[in-house]
Amino acid sequence: MNKLQNNWFSESCDMWPGATFSFEVTEVLHEEKSQFQNIQVFDTKSLGKVLVLDGIIQCTQKDEFSYQEMISFLPLCCHKNPEKVLIVGGGDGGVAREVAKHPKVKEIVQVEIDEKVIEVSKKHLPFMAVGFDSHKLTLHVGDGFEFLKNHREEFDVIITDSSDPVGPAVSLFEENYFSLMKKALKPHGIVCSQAGTIWNDLELVSSTLRYCKNQFASVAYAYTSVPTYPSGQIGFVIGSLDKDVNFDTPDLVFSRDDEKAMNLRYYNSDVHKAAFVLPTYVKYQLV
Amino acid sequence: MNKLQNNWFSESCDMWPGATFSFEVTEVLHEEKSQFQNIQVFDTKSLGKVLVLDGIIQCTQKDEFSYQEMISFLPLCCHKNPEKVLIVGGGDGGVAREVAKHPKVKEIVQVEIDEKVIEVSKKHLPFMAVGFDSHKLTLHVGDGFEFLKNHREEFDVIITDSSDPVGPAVSLFEENYFSLMKKALKPHGIVCSQAGTIWNDLELVSSTLRYCKNQFASVAYAYTSVPTYPSGQIGFVIGSLDKDVNFDTPDLVFSRDDEKAMNLRYYNSDVHKAAFVLPTYVKYQLV
Repeated sequence: MNKLQNNWFSESCDMWPGATFSFEVTEVLHEEKSQFQNIQVFDTKSLGKVLVLDGIIQCTQKDEFSYQEMISFLPLCCHKNPEKVLIVGGGDGGVAREVAKHPKVKEIVQVEIDEKVIEVSKKHLPFMAVGFDSHKLTLHVGDGFEFLKNHREEFDVIITDSSDPVGPAVSLFEENYFSLMKKALKPHGIVCSQAGTIWNDLELVSSTLRYCKNQFASVAYAYTSVPTYPSGQIGFVIGSLDKDVNFDTPDLVFSRDDEKAMNLRYYNSDVHKAAFVLPTYVKYQLV
Repeated sequence: MNKLQNNWFSESCDMWPGATFSFEVTEVLHEEKSQFQNIQVFDTKSLGKVLVLDGIIQCTQKDEFSYQEMISFLPLCCHKNPEKVLIVGGGDGGVAREVAKHPKVKEIVQVEIDEKVIEVSKKHLPFMAVGFDSHKLTLHVGDGFEFLKNHREEFDVIITDSSDPVGPAVSLFEENYFSLMKKALKPHGIVCSQAGTIWNDLELVSSTLRYCKNQFASVAYAYTSVPTYPSGQIGFVIGSLDKDVNFDTPDLVFSRDDEKAMNLRYYNSDVHKAAFVLPTYVKYQLV
């Protein structure tokens, strides 16, 4: 599978055997093998532009806003003063686009390992790559894991927008990584990482939560709806250096005017709270 | 599409063009054309048993509990005393299984149009068809729309567990149907109908809500995660004869012991509340 046949692209992966999502391609906009991964951009019949890395859908124009807004605003709105933010990964620019909107954020540093993804996004996915235009942003091309080794007590929030733990992103799901992030945070710092779903990857969710919990005083799992991801949703592990953080109660509550000014299409303060509510079959199993 | 090829079944539909979900079949357990629709039951590599009607996935063993519990407990727990419940559709038995669990429900009447679905479920999907064994249940084979014409002020809650509005279920999405349900309800009565998703069928959601609103004093839209449905979720339109109902605040709150006793795997009182929280892009558009 993972191939284009009769203008249909099919995604499949060992992480979710026996099921696959396919979409109709109207144009192959880009295809290359970078130093790190295979990069494809498609125009499609019903999902808009789609970015695919190593055969796995990273984002579609139809629903990317849910992922980008939630991985950004969940941690940002849990922090009292998220002035300096580090983004690890996020080579399409979507997370930078969202983080830059937050009124308290003054400085964004981003480390993306694959400069080809940045280039391709600038060319074909301008609705996300617009994030790179922010005057708040300093963009580095490099390994986020290595970058963190040289940074101490520098960031208020670290957001890890990685692909799944196959290929270049494996190290970002290990406990070492959470330990490095901890050291790079200022007091009261918060981290938020993509962390799989309760339907398909409960083991991954559990292990990522455990690694985070071993390093951070408070942890939680939240999720959002992204129709084009396997199982139609994606989850986040959030950790704070502070004890007794109420992750589900945003410190900064947005008004309807705020939502409009920031063009928030998915995130709002009620959605924030609901994102931490778990179905019964995992409620007592996680965290 | 909508076919079995090399042991993979692909679902596609005009309701969600340009995208399709496929699963690997290990055994075709049943296939027949009933008076109303094509019925297929598969055993699969990763989803357990799967019921397909007219080429559309109705439920999979992996995630059916989310749908069945939510379409049942959302309306039941909004009602102060849901003693007598009507289920329209639900031929697999899953909704009856859930409704029968509710401590206040004394009597369940179910009207399913296709007796072949009932037969097939009893044979191949016993984990759902167990619902038909409840001593609370009286099962009729017939048209729910016609059934309602002969019933006045009889039910506390009416749950419509239908397929999508193509084929035999079309009439269950029209305003006439909501008008008939209204007349069949006792004072304080509540209805809950399957009603499409905000990602793929926003027009269907809006029209169903509008029809419901034209007949009922209070209405709301809620949704739950069902990975094997298009867009990974499914929504419900809920209406009450009473004004100022707080749908998102369950009248009956379950303890952990209650959840265990009823084997609730998805629904809990926090999930109830969260199910009504809408993303910003639809929050101000619906209801």
